[in-house]
Amino acid sequence: MNDRVYFSKWYLKGIRENPSTSGPFVKKFINLDMRMYLRLLNWVPAALKMPEPELIEHAGLDSAVYIRIYLLGLKIFVPIAALALTVLLPVNYTDRNFEIMSTKLEDLTFGAIDKFSISNVPSASKRLYVHISMAYVFTFWTFYMLYKEYKTILNMRLHFLATENRHPDQFTVLVRNVPPDPEETISENVEHFFRVNHPDQYLLHQVVYNANKLAKIVNQKKDLYNRLIYYTNKYERKHDKRPTTKTGFWGLWGKKIDAIDYYTEEIDKLSKEEVLERERVIGDPKAVVPAAFVSFKSRWGAAVCAQTQQTRNPIDWLTTWAPQPRDVYWDNLAIPFIELNMRRLLIAAAVIGLTFFFMIPIAFVQTLANIESIEKVVPFLKPLINKGSIKSVIQGFLPGIVLKIFILFLPMIVMAMSKIEGFVAISTLEARSAAKFHLFLIVNVFFGSIIAGTALQQLKEFLNQKPADIPKIVGVSIPMKATFFMTYIMVDGWAGIAAEILRLVPLVIFHLKNLFLVKTEKDREEAMDPGSLAWPTTEPRIQLYFLLGLVYATVTPIFLPFIIVFFAFSYLVYRHQIINVYNQQYESAASFWPDVNRRIVISLIISQFLLLGILSMKDAVNSTAFLLVLPVLTFLFHRFCKNRFESAFRRFPLQDAMIKDTLEKVTEPHLNLKVYLRDAYIHPVFKDLVLDDYEDYEYPLVATKRSSRNGSQIGTDQGTPSVDLTSISIV
Amino acid sequence: MNDRVYFSKWYLKGIRENPSTSGPFVKKFINLDMRMYLRLLNWVPAALKMPEPELIEHAGLDSAVYIRIYLLGLKIFVPIAALALTVLLPVNYTDRNFEIMSTKLEDLTFGAIDKFSISNVPSASKRLYVHISMAYVFTFWTFYMLYKEYKTILNMRLHFLATENRHPDQFTVLVRNVPPDPEETISENVEHFFRVNHPDQYLLHQVVYNANKLAKIVNQKKDLYNRLIYYTNKYERKHDKRPTTKTGFWGLWGKKIDAIDYYTEEIDKLSKEEVLERERVIGDPKAVVPAAFVSFKSRWGAAVCAQTQQTRNPIDWLTTWAPQPRDVYWDNLAIPFIELNMRRLLIAAAVIGLTFFFMIPIAFVQTLANIESIEKVVPFLKPLINKGSIKSVIQGFLPGIVLKIFILFLPMIVMAMSKIEGFVAISTLEARSAAKFHLFLIVNVFFGSIIAGTALQQLKEFLNQKPADIPKIVGVSIPMKATFFMTYIMVDGWAGIAAEILRLVPLVIFHLKNLFLVKTEKDREEAMDPGSLAWPTTEPRIQLYFLLGLVYATVTPIFLPFIIVFFAFSYLVYRHQIINVYNQQYESAASFWPDVNRRIVISLIISQFLLLGILSMKDAVNSTAFLLVLPVLTFLFHRFCKNRFESAFRRFPLQDAMIKDTLEKVTEPHLNLKVYLRDAYIHPVFKDLVLDDYEDYEYPLVATKRSSRNGSQIGTDQGTPSVDLTSISIV
Repeated sequence: MNDRVYFSKWYLKGIRENPSTSGPFVKKFINLDMRMYLRLLNWVPAALKMPEPELIEHAGLDSAVYIRIYLLGLKIFVPIAALALTVLLPVNYTDRNFEIMSTKLEDLTFGAIDKFSISNVPSASKRLYVHISMAYVFTFWTFYMLYKEYKTILNMRLHFLATENRHPDQFTVLVRNVPPDPEETISENVEHFFRVNHPDQYLLHQVVYNANKLAKIVNQKKDLYNRLIYYTNKYERKHDKRPTTKTGFWGLWGKKIDAIDYYTEEIDKLSKEEVLERERVIGDPKAVVPAAFVSFKSRWGAAVCAQTQQTRNPIDWLTTWAPQPRDVYWDNLAIPFIELNMRRLLIAAAVIGLTFFFMIPIAFVQTLANIESIEKVVPFLKPLINKGSIKSVIQGFLPGIVLKIFILFLPMIVMAMSKIEGFVAISTLEARSAAKFHLFLIVNVFFGSIIAGTALQQLKEFLNQKPADIPKIVGVSIPMKATFFMTYIMVDGWAGIAAEILRLVPLVIFHLKNLFLVKTEKDREEAMDPGSLAWPTTEPRIQLYFLLGLVYATVTPIFLPFIIVFFAFSYLVYRHQIINVYNQQYESAASFWPDVNRRIVISLIISQFLLLGILSMKDAVNSTAFLLVLPVLTFLFHRFCKNRFESAFRRFPLQDAMIKDTLEKVTEPHLNLKVYLRDAYIHPVFKDLVLDDYEDYEYPLVATKRSSRNGSQIGTDQGTPSVDLTSISIV
Repeated sequence: MNDRVYFSKWYLKGIRENPSTSGPFVKKFINLDMRMYLRLLNWVPAALKMPEPELIEHAGLDSAVYIRIYLLGLKIFVPIAALALTVLLPVNYTDRNFEIMSTKLEDLTFGAIDKFSISNVPSASKRLYVHISMAYVFTFWTFYMLYKEYKTILNMRLHFLATENRHPDQFTVLVRNVPPDPEETISENVEHFFRVNHPDQYLLHQVVYNANKLAKIVNQKKDLYNRLIYYTNKYERKHDKRPTTKTGFWGLWGKKIDAIDYYTEEIDKLSKEEVLERERVIGDPKAVVPAAFVSFKSRWGAAVCAQTQQTRNPIDWLTTWAPQPRDVYWDNLAIPFIELNMRRLLIAAAVIGLTFFFMIPIAFVQTLANIESIEKVVPFLKPLINKGSIKSVIQGFLPGIVLKIFILFLPMIVMAMSKIEGFVAISTLEARSAAKFHLFLIVNVFFGSIIAGTALQQLKEFLNQKPADIPKIVGVSIPMKATFFMTYIMVDGWAGIAAEILRLVPLVIFHLKNLFLVKTEKDREEAMDPGSLAWPTTEPRIQLYFLLGLVYATVTPIFLPFIIVFFAFSYLVYRHQIINVYNQQYESAASFWPDVNRRIVISLIISQFLLLGILSMKDAVNSTAFLLVLPVLTFLFHRFCKNRFESAFRRFPLQDAMIKDTLEKVTEPHLNLKVYLRDAYIHPVFKDLVLDDYEDYEYPLVATKRSSRNGSQIGTDQGTPSVDLTSISIV
């Protein structure tokens, strides 16, 4: 039974079948076969066996590149760790700052770990030059690995794009903010504009309807239909008694009524409503939003249109590459373009607010969640808690766990924010959410943990410090916080990965749903929704580990093995998961890589400034100039990567488009692109229907109404006298 | 005679003729006719008479828009001054901070002007809210005027572009960094690439030769030829004696020889050298730089190519809109693309160095150039200097004059820097120089004058202050420096404009040249070179006055009339100059306006932060929050302007291109574009010759060598079997 949770991707692909669920009841939930437990780690070699090209074909490029982030972590940190442990560790350990200080201040105690860190090197020591040169070595090694990886990913992406099958989005451009025209409908306006300005390339277009209300009705109806089937099945099995339900919420209270009759009636009601709404949407010109999907005769034409400016006013006729049909976030297409700037502004303010004030409740709860408070609230636990080992575990883990719980709620908040921002592709929404989450993690988890107190207090303190002193303040606490972050890695990183491979949460949810909610076969299919890589949460979290690794590489080298274990374990687990579990919603061909690269570079710069702070604490003033070179170099590296690679992730070069067009013309000379693209970008709510039903709504042929009154229309009159509008007849 | 200096533009247009220079010798240089002096101000109404459309046609859009900057200054500052003088001035003057302070500290003296400034309002006074609200009013008024002006300029630009005649640059794209191909020359490579990837639009291309050495030879030859003519004329007039010259530098020393023979011989030598070099350039494939001007069949095709990415590697086949032929800076086309990033980096470092270290010599000279030093050096001037009125003039003017002299050298330095950066259009070079000069003026003239000491010292001081204290430090000295800046406006602004209308420098140079250098009629034409608006120096200077006006509007309102006089006077003078004198080198259709707008916005933000500093000095702490809103609003205004307008200044929208193409097709159906564009982008060194001479160099027809070995070449084979390369035969 659990098979569906652990290998859901194969079910979706139709390769695995339902196992026959015979045997005692308990076997359904707990596997009693001991041999299974012995074979528990069998998945490890299996996960590594699949070669990368097959992996890309099986799970998509996005997933394959995603696990390469972990691999990149290993590539960066294994050599760094080897060097740091062999060079820096002895340098730190053989020095005697703590001995000196201990003799001076007898009550001073140090953790065992501090002997291995830079704190054990006294101020103004010549040994600090070893740390500085290591910072250079680590930086250049990171540059090299990042550059190599960027290049590899770029080639993978280009190869993927060059070999992928025909997709509607290759030919299609999303045009937004179509200006209103008093004499023409939006559809006519789009048609005429592109016929005039892209005369050789324009093929057809699909207008976008504001069908958000209709989609809601259709979903309600589906839900009711599902219930009707459930009760009908029930009645068929036990013919003696017609099933009943209650009118109240979820059928839990209210008047008792005949279920089949009730739902049939309700569905009829909704069906009528749906027909009305559907007619309104298709008939009412106001239901058409000023946006359209415009398809071209070739990829070249679409690439040209997506990359150029159409009119004088840069916010009219805004063209962007269309997202994949399954990637479109339809709800946001109806947002008026004029609102978008305002929305983005508001959300930017909200993100800053969230980032800087979120720490206040966390700090409050963290002060409550210490051992003394727990003893007060639950005094009977006192003897247990005060046992030495348990006490230290609680002291170490508790603040981390509190933070972790708070952060669990965050992805939903940032995703909601991104949706309000009004982006129209799910991939963009996820990328924006990831950016917000990343900012939050750096400010609150990283800096928030290093400097105690709320982010707001920090800000106040910072403004009243001399700017030259700020790195010093941070510099003091970095080495001291190494133990905390080690605990954090174990709680958040290691345990998180273990939970991931066991799929604890989805497993629980699946069984709960199976027990209480699943009523039909369709429900069961939905219950085992495998989910997808939670990009907006997982990627920024990986970045946090990159940041920690880069910061502590020079400060506390003993930290690095923890990071390496995390990356190695994660790589194994996620390779298994993308093969067996996840089902991606969309395929962006690794277009997120520039973000990944940029964030690692940001981490690198942060680590360099922090080292600068630590060294200025150590009175190694002469070293400042040496170390200031590093952030400048890193910034230049970032600019170099951006110039060299990024545009290939954002735009589709004309040459590649032309190659694919030409090949297609040779291999499929009789392809009817018009038919292929006609229904590609229909709102999913219209797609569910048999399309033929709606051919009644076909518009008559529309000739252009405006006869060469202004220059831009001259082409229309000469070129195509009657305009074929079959494209808009469907939607 | 001076007529040529004051009305040189008309001579260039061929409307004015040489006046007959009869009469006494002295009349040549000094006008003895007294009536002329009475009519001295006659040019004022004449300058205002010409309506703007005629002005645009006469002097170009760049010039017409340039004088609108002064007009914008008036539009912004006249209402602000009216309000400031009626509201703020009484508020400041009727307060009594100085009275209070004078009674406390008897030895404190204040300038008369300080009674009118914000310094006369005591700390924590309620009156400061008047200043805050005025800051809001001034900011919003500036927004309104900037927005209105931006819109007007945009419409002027679009109208200008829509109505301008056919230009080669409308059809042409400059492609740089053509990747090397082992089997094809650069010319063939370009030809095939664009035939394949822009099959319907490609027309022809012109390769770029590295003819820098050839250009040098041709110039040398021209110079010698000019001398030859001079001596030949001389010989013809006085037939008895053959003129002689000396072989040394400028004919000043060396062996005495027969001039005509010597120069004939030298010219022959150079001619041979030139022919060899010319053959080398045309014949040697290494003389072709990996760049080309590619022309298209329509403006639409060129717009598409300029705005799209051609290949996977974003730094190969880099396409940008071609500058006008007269705007091309040929020397830089030969710079390998790979060098450019390095060059830009170096120059960025150099600009920072220049900006922050230039103050050191200035400060040094300024300490020398005080009255005591002058008395020491030239003791006989002592009685004169010590006279009251003269002493105060010297004290006021001297530091300004020292600064001014230093700054006179700067434009050459920044222009040289921009040339090293490797931009290929003169317009871009000037824009970049202006940006550098603007940074310099703000850091050194504005902040350098406000805070005494070198910029480097300031930086050191700033880093050791609490960030919250920095505005305070600046806040103290702003009101105190009002007198200095008033003097500066009079010395730099008013006197500068007066010198401009009198054209003192060009007048002196013209006469010096006439006396010593002019040998032939051609020399005289060159001597009266009218010059053009020195954009890189004048625009940043205007910006300095915007900055001063915006800063002192709330602080010392009595400052504003000085600014207004400057703008009004400048407007008149420059309107006269662009009508009668200047001859622009290129026409960029006001593409510099985004820079102008951005810089005024920067000035606005600086002024807001400085007011914040002044008020925090006055213990009006509650006002900080009020005032912090302003820079944020200003930044948002900047973003809004950028999104709304800027792209129309950078790109050519497809719709506009299509309209112009369509109109042209209707009005001139038989236009042979190929002939029109064939020679448009030849290096000027080749243009001087009769083109027919070089038809011998015509290449044979070149068929594509690579037969569909890779996908990108398929189009070539099907499309055009024989390639017409007449285009490259010329150059």
